[in-house]
Amino acid sequence: MHIALLTDFGNRDPYVAAMKGVLASRTTAPVIDLSHDIAPFDVLEAAWFLRTVVPFWSGPTIFVCVVDPGVGSSRKIVAVREEERIFLAPDNGLLTFTAPDEIRSVERSDLFLPTESTTFHGRDRFAPVAAALANGLTLEALGPAMTSMFKLHYRAPDYSETVVRGTVVAIDRFGNLITDVERSRVPFDTFELHARGVSIERVEHHYAGAEPGPFLIVGSSGLIEISVANGSAAERLGILRLDRITIQPGSTHL
Amino acid sequence: MHIALLTDFGNRDPYVAAMKGVLASRTTAPVIDLSHDIAPFDVLEAAWFLRTVVPFWSGPTIFVCVVDPGVGSSRKIVAVREEERIFLAPDNGLLTFTAPDEIRSVERSDLFLPTESTTFHGRDRFAPVAAALANGLTLEALGPAMTSMFKLHYRAPDYSETVVRGTVVAIDRFGNLITDVERSRVPFDTFELHARGVSIERVEHHYAGAEPGPFLIVGSSGLIEISVANGSAAERLGILRLDRITIQPGSTHL
Amino acid sequence: MHIALLTDFGNRDPYVAAMKGVLASRTTAPVIDLSHDIAPFDVLEAAWFLRTVVPFWSGPTIFVCVVDPGVGSSRKIVAVREEERIFLAPDNGLLTFTAPDEIRSVERSDLFLPTESTTFHGRDRFAPVAAALANGLTLEALGPAMTSMFKLHYRAPDYSETVVRGTVVAIDRFGNLITDVERSRVPFDTFELHARGVSIERVEHHYAGAEPGPFLIVGSSGLIEISVANGSAAERLGILRLDRITIQPGSTHL
Repeated sequence: MHIALLTDFGNRDPYVAAMKGVLASRTTAPVIDLSHDIAPFDVLEAAWFLRTVVPFWSGPTIFVCVVDPGVGSSRKIVAVREEERIFLAPDNGLLTFTAPDEIRSVERSDLFLPTESTTFHGRDRFAPVAAALANGLTLEALGPAMTSMFKLHYRAPDYSETVVRGTVVAIDRFGNLITDVERSRVPFDTFELHARGVSIERVEHHYAGAEPGPFLIVGSSGLIEISVANGSAAERLGILRLDRITIQPGSTHL
Repeated sequence: MHIALLTDFGNRDPYVAAMKGVLASRTTAPVIDLSHDIAPFDVLEAAWFLRTVVPFWSGPTIFVCVVDPGVGSSRKIVAVREEERIFLAPDNGLLTFTAPDEIRSVERSDLFLPTESTTFHGRDRFAPVAAALANGLTLEALGPAMTSMFKLHYRAPDYSETVVRGTVVAIDRFGNLITDVERSRVPFDTFELHARGVSIERVEHHYAGAEPGPFLIVGSSGLIEISVANGSAAERLGILRLDRITIQPGSTHL
Repeated sequence: MHIALLTDFGNRDPYVAAMKGVLASRTTAPVIDLSHDIAPFDVLEAAWFLRTVVPFWSGPTIFVCVVDPGVGSSRKIVAVREEERIFLAPDNGLLTFTAPDEIRSVERSDLFLPTESTTFHGRDRFAPVAAALANGLTLEALGPAMTSMFKLHYRAPDYSETVVRGTVVAIDRFGNLITDVERSRVPFDTFELHARGVSIERVEHHYAGAEPGPFLIVGSSGLIEISVANGSAAERLGILRLDRITIQPGSTHL
C-alpha cells in the first residue's frame, strides 16, 4: 500500500513536512509526492490532475488530496474507493472526475490529532486517517456511507456531427494548451480549431522537428492539445486556461 | 528509522541528488524530503521550519539539516538527540528551537567521504554520517559531548498583562503573516494587533467564507496569524517578515 | 535496487505523477526524485547533472532520465550499464558523460504501455521498462547491442602549459558560475581567470567570511568556480552559462 500526496501547499512552507511527520510516525507505508504545486485553492486543477494520473495507478494506493479552501467550515471530508484506490479529500469537488464504488463521510474524530487547530486538516485529519487506512482500517470504519459528493460545475465537451465545443483545461510547463476534447470521440476526421479568434488547422504527430507556428496534436491522455514548436503556445497565442474552443471539420487529418 | 532532509539547495541543482546518492549507496533507510526551498543561507527560516514540524514527528528519525553559509570554516557540525529524534546540522543556530538531550561534536573524519572538497559538507560529511547512524552507529561514537550550541539572536515574545510584543516570523505561500505569539499565552481575551501602522481587530476561526479585508486567526501551530480572505495578507498590508507587532486588549474575542 | 528520476517535467503538471503511478503499479523498488526542474528540453543541463551526481552513487540504481525534445520521432531509447548503474534515456546526448560498459537499444514493445500516445514515452516506455529491470529483467532482454550513442557537441577544456580554456557549464541556485575546468589538471599553480572582459585573481577556500567582490574557488566536484560573497556571481558579473573562459598563470595560488 502506497500513500500518494497531492496538495497546494508548495514545498517551501512546513505544511507538507508536518503531514509527512504524522505519516512517518504512524505507518511504514511508502509516501509518494504527486505534486504540492497545485495553484493555491485551485480545486479544478487538482481534480484534473487526478483525472490525468489515476488511470496509470493500479494496485492499492491511498491518495491524500488536500486543496481545501473550506478547511474548518462545515464541508465534510470524504473517503472514496474506486477499484483498489482510496481517495481522501475535502468534499469540495476535488474528486469530480473519479468513479466512486463507495463514499464515506470521515467522522472518526478519535483518529484525528488532538490539536485545537481548525485550519490544517491535512496534518490533523487527513494524515492520521491515511495512516490508519494504510495500517489496515476499513473504509467502512471511517463513517457513514454517502450516496453522492459535491461536484464542480464543469461543462463537459459537446460532441456533435458538425462541431465540437470544449474547454482549455490546463496549460503545462511547456506552454501546451490542453483541451478536454477526446480525439477518439470527435465524429469527423479533419480538423479546424478556433479559440480566441485564432484558427488552427495544422496537425502534427509529435513535437520534434515541427516547423515554426502553432499546431494541433493528440496529447498523452488522448486529448487534443494546441502546441507550438520550441515555444509556449499559451504565450504565443494569448489563449487562457478555461477559454472555450470549437472544432469543426477542416482540411487536415489528426 | 527514517532520514529527513532539510536544505537550501533548491531542486534544480545536483546537490540534493548527490546527497541522496551517498545515502542510497550506504543505507536502506527511507529518505524523506522535508524541503529544499529554504531561502539561501536563511538559518532562521530553517530553524523555524523545524520548530513547526518537529512536534509532529515521533518515533526515530534522523533530520539532516544543511543550511550552511559557513561550510568549510571552523564552525562545527553537531549531532543532537531530542527524545527519539536525531538532528545533524552545522552549529550555526539551525537547532535554536530544539531541546537537546545530548549534543555531540561530529569529528569522526573516517566516516566522511575522502574528497578534497571543502564546500559541500552535505554530501561529504552529513550524508555519510546520517547513513552510519541509520545503520546503528551511536551518537556517542561521533565525537565529544558539548554542553551548548550556537543560538540565533532570536527575541522571544514579551507577554505582559497589558501588551504582548512579538515578531512576524514567517510568510507562507498563501500570504499569511505568521507571528511567534502563542494564543494560549496571551493573558487577555480581546485583541487588537498593530504592525507597520496597520491596526487589526477582526478575528475569524477559519479562512473559508471570510468577508474581504484582513483578520486575525489562530494558525495551525497555535500562533496568531494575520490573514486576508482570498488574497495575500503580506502583499495587501505591506508587512514584512521580521516586522515587530504589538497586541493589546481590543474589542473582539480570538 | 533504487529507481532515480531525472526529468524536465516540473512538479506542477501531472507528468511525473503518472510515471510514478506506472512504477508503483509494477514494482516495489523505492523511487527517488533527483530533479524534475531541468530547464525544458535542456539535454546538456541534464547530462551535466548526471556527470556531477553519478560519482556519488555506488550500488545498483536505475536512472530514468527523460529530457526528450525528440519524443515520438525516430530517436532511439537506450539502456546503458556503467558498473552497477543502469541508465534509461533517449539517445540524444543525455548520457554524453557516462562511460558505458554495455549499450542496448530498447525495442521490447511488449513491455510498453498499450496507449496510442506518441508524446509521453516517460510514462509509456521508460517507466514500465524501469520497473521490469527493477524486477530482474536483464539489459540484454531489452534489445540489440549498440556500439555507440549520440554525443553532445561538447568542447572539453584545453589544458596547456600557459593557458587553459574552458566553459561555464552551470550556474547554481547561489549564483556560483561553475566551469568545466578541473583544478587538478591545470598545470600551473597561480591563477588569473578571464571571462566576458572580467578578470579575477582572488582565490578563497570556502565561501564563509569572504570579503566583498568576486573570487575563484574549487567547487565540490573539483571544478573551478567563480563566486562572490553573499551574492550571485552570475548577476554581479553578467557572465552567462556557456560563456568561454581562459585561465592563465597569475599572482595567487588556488
